[in-house]
Amino acid sequence: MAAKVYLALLHYPVYNKREEVITTSITNLDIHDIARSARTYAVERLFFIHPAEAQQRLAQDILQYWQQGYGSTYNTDRKEALSIVRLTHTLQDAVEEIRVACGRLPVIITTDARIFPNTISYQELRSKMERDDRPYLVLFGTGWGIERELMQSFDYILEPIIGRGNYNHLSVRAAAAIILDRLLGR
Amino acid sequence: MAAKVYLALLHYPVYNKREEVITTSITNLDIHDIARSARTYAVERLFFIHPAEAQQRLAQDILQYWQQGYGSTYNTDRKEALSIVRLTHTLQDAVEEIRVACGRLPVIITTDARIFPNTISYQELRSKMERDDRPYLVLFGTGWGIERELMQSFDYILEPIIGRGNYNHLSVRAAAAIILDRLLGR
Repeated sequence: MAAKVYLALLHYPVYNKREEVITTSITNLDIHDIARSARTYAVERLFFIHPAEAQQRLAQDILQYWQQGYGSTYNTDRKEALSIVRLTHTLQDAVEEIRVACGRLPVIITTDARIFPNTISYQELRSKMERDDRPYLVLFGTGWGIERELMQSFDYILEPIIGRGNYNHLSVRAAAAIILDRLLGR
Repeated sequence: MAAKVYLALLHYPVYNKREEVITTSITNLDIHDIARSARTYAVERLFFIHPAEAQQRLAQDILQYWQQGYGSTYNTDRKEALSIVRLTHTLQDAVEEIRVACGRLPVIITTDARIFPNTISYQELRSKMERDDRPYLVLFGTGWGIERELMQSFDYILEPIIGRGNYNHLSVRAAAAIILDRLLGR
């Protein structure tokens, strides 16, 4: 794999059930599960993007418990997984951190249940990553999906994960695991 | 896919960190996440296997909220996912339910970080499932893994999920999602 891969979970701007733009809360188990999956697939950094100071502090407390607190000696595997997590206020902050680390802007990809002009298959994206030395940022929305105008600024949209049949409502934790395996698994 | 596929999460007998045989608690988010993944991949039933009455009642309360309570109208997708969940006291009860439904005993598969004489690859198991009309039960342990003697009674052990590098500590929710995608995804 030539490309460095980054992941991010976006908590604003996303839709609620009624298509209003809202901010979702950070979920403890998203941090743990997605960090463990990301670390297993050698992702460089996992960003949790949230504009609110109180949510940042909450997430920071969780990270500190597993990085420096009792959790860091109780479960060193968890410490290692959470070591790749970063908190930022905006997507732009995450993109800037990647630019500083890699010397170039990342290709930004997200997922959606619908097909767009720039929809890309897992196989296509995987082979791009294999021969490209640009960093790649795979961005996951929360709630009922990322706000439309922001979506249109991304480079690619990954095709929906189709299982068997018409039901398609994976948790973001499950979707992130499957996408990592499809893009980076052996 | 010829075979009917079942999933189960086993809470006893499993190891804790010190290799003592214990019973783990049922986790609310395991029910939700694994049911959503299982339903997406058209799994027939998802069993939560726990010997304790109080844990069964707790899980039953959660299921009822989403099946008949407020949750059933608030989120009908979740209602549909949880409709495949069953609670049993023992693995034998789950196996018997499958036998009654399918008229034959299931092939039982589990996962482990180690290699066994009956370790099977994802590709091999997938092609077995495609041409076999026996039911298949994919069993996930909780805690630090399923008790050794019971492990030895299973038909196959799925090879470990290797990401990139040496770190390999996926949550059961992430592992279940990846395994479903590898065995049943398009």
